[in-house]
Formats: sequence, C-alpha cells, structure tokens
Amino acid sequence: MSSSHPRPPAEVMAPWRIPLGADLAAHVTRAEALYVQLATVRADGRPANRTLVFRGFLSGDRLAFITDLRSDKVAELACHPFAEACWYFPEARVQWRLLGEAQCLSEEGPELQHARSRWWRERDEAARRSFAGPRPGARRAEDEAFAVEAPVIPPAHFGLLVLAPDMVERLDLRATPHRRERWHADEYSWQAQRLNP
Amino acid sequence: MSSSHPRPPAEVMAPWRIPLGADLAAHVTRAEALYVQLATVRADGRPANRTLVFRGFLSGDRLAFITDLRSDKVAELACHPFAEACWYFPEARVQWRLLGEAQCLSEEGPELQHARSRWWRERDEAARRSFAGPRPGARRAEDEAFAVEAPVIPPAHFGLLVLAPDMVERLDLRATPHRRERWHADEYSWQAQRLNP
Repeated sequence: MSSSHPRPPAEVMAPWRIPLGADLAAHVTRAEALYVQLATVRADGRPANRTLVFRGFLSGDRLAFITDLRSDKVAELACHPFAEACWYFPEARVQWRLLGEAQCLSEEGPELQHARSRWWRERDEAARRSFAGPRPGARRAEDEAFAVEAPVIPPAHFGLLVLAPDMVERLDLRATPHRRERWHADEYSWQAQRLNP
Repeated sequence: MSSSHPRPPAEVMAPWRIPLGADLAAHVTRAEALYVQLATVRADGRPANRTLVFRGFLSGDRLAFITDLRSDKVAELACHPFAEACWYFPEARVQWRLLGEAQCLSEEGPELQHARSRWWRERDEAARRSFAGPRPGARRAEDEAFAVEAPVIPPAHFGLLVLAPDMVERLDLRATPHRRERWHADEYSWQAQRLNP
C-alpha cells in the first residue's frame, strides 16, 4: 500500500515544517501543546484514538513518539500501517492534521538508536519504571507487579512510533473565514493548496 | 456490523457518565476542555482525525457534536459508521476514549430537532455564516463566496454527529502507576474492568 502514498526524498524539506515550527514555538511554555492525538485502525476495522507526546522530528520530516512495543497500537499498526495525528494549539487556535505511514521501531539505524537512547535518559524514574511493569492494556495486575526497579538501559519494548506524513493540513481558526491549507506529497515534492474551511 | 456492538437500553445510565461529568466539571472555565479529537476511517481504509466541540449528551448516553453535512467526515461515516473520540483534560490529567457507532443526522425525532434548533440559536454570526459558505474541503473559493448573510433558520446541512459509545476508557495520569479503567457494553448493562496502564 505504501507505494500509492509516495513522499519526496529526505533531502527535500517539507514546506509545512516552517508554519508548524512557528505554532510550536508559540506554545513553548505549555507542556500539553506537545500532546497529539493519534488515530489508527483496529484489527476489526474500527478506528482507535489516543494521546501521545510529540518527541521531535527525525530525518525526512518524520514525527517521533515513544511507545511501549507491547501496546495495542503497535499491533494495530502492524495490520494497518497508517495513522493521522491531530494536533491542536490552543493559543494560536490552529489545528494540524498529519496523515501518513506509521511504523513502530526498536533499533534500526544509527539515527533511531541515538534518539531512543537520548529519550530513555530523559525520562524520569516513574516513566522508566512503567516499561518494566506488566503488559499495557491487559487485565490489571496486582500492585506488586508495578513495584519494580527502573531499568538502567532501555528494555527491548521501549520503542519509537514514527509517522511519515504524506498529507498535511493546517486550519487557522483565528482568521475569518477560517484559513485551511493542505500540503500533499508526491515522489518529488510537496504541493500546497488552499481549501474551503 | 452494529449488531456485533450491542448497547444497553437507553434507560440504563452508563456508569462512566459520573466520572466523565466530574472531569468536565473540573474544567468548566476552560473552553478548550470541550474540544474532542474524533477518529474515523476514510474510504481508502486510512484513518482520519479532527477536533470537534462537544455540545452535550442526548438520551442513551450519546455524545453530540455539530457538523456541516457536506464535510468529509460525513461521507466517511456513511461507509464506516464508527468513531473513537479521544478527550484530554489537562487540569485533571485524564484521558477519555469513547468508541462506538457514529451517525450524522439532520432532523430525526423531536429530541434531535430540539437540540439542533437550540444549538443553531446559540451559534454566533460568524459560525452561522460558515454554513452558508461554499462546501468545506473543496478547493478554496473566491473571497466573495464567503461574504454571505448568516441564515436565520438552520440550513439543511447544519447537522449533528452523534456518537453512541459501546467501549469507554478513562486513563488517570496523576496516579502512580497510572490508573486505567474500561467500561464495555453488552445488550443489558455496562461491565467495568481495570487494565494495566
């Protein structure tokens, strides 16, 4: 399926990175501005949606999130490897939608290994301990199962979820009428278009 | 498909309404706490995700949103009538996920007619005008197409999107370890279960 959703080579910087960077910069003091809702498709064909914390960009304009590789979204993406992130910036009153192929990775290539090590070090004790606990989404284990030591090195299921958008939209709710722009990738570049809000 | 996702009769009040009401009440002064991300499935099988404003509950523990019936999500739901709402409350540090059948309706029965009339009256001039403008998501029309009078009565495409959840999750990020609960409907009642976070 991915061949029907081409993206430009990684050297081509996506034009939507500049306005997205500006909206991010306007919210630098608000931690929840990094919270993104990520939609996927379940094995039964129904949608799923949950909040993730945006961790940064990887080469090729890919968005990186941290995930427990034992979680449901990893199994969902193995069947349907596409996701749409919906990202709302309350100060700017701007919504972003980023649709594309999504993969969950442990260690693959030096860039991902480096990012994974760095983000593991940056996580606090409680967050690191959560990766040593029982499997997410299973029936609640006894409290003792959560009373574990935080691992020093990242366990194998400390993974990254990487979204490579091929269609991106920005909706500005401050403008009247609202301003809606879409960027669409082909194998060479990004095409921009204005849409009715 | 809906028969495989039963719900209790409308007289049975869902147990998740009480904690959801409490989380809503804790955010009564924050307008963006009514913003919900709604995931659907596109005609090509990829997910879609956008922000909607929660308008209130209808009978049978159904969540109501306003939608332009000409928008893409309406066509998506006609093919795949399921949605998952992801709702994050920043003060409480609580995430809700509500999965179920979703329908877009114009006027059907007195309850919906009443809700629709009331929400139309409550919308400001600019919001009402947006329903008289050109079709959402189409290539941007000329500015003149947006310089229209706000209709007095709701146009036919001023519709409601109604979500009837059959699986609901609450994730409390303040607790250590995080606390995750799921309610699952059958045709008689709701079953509650605690899950690993």
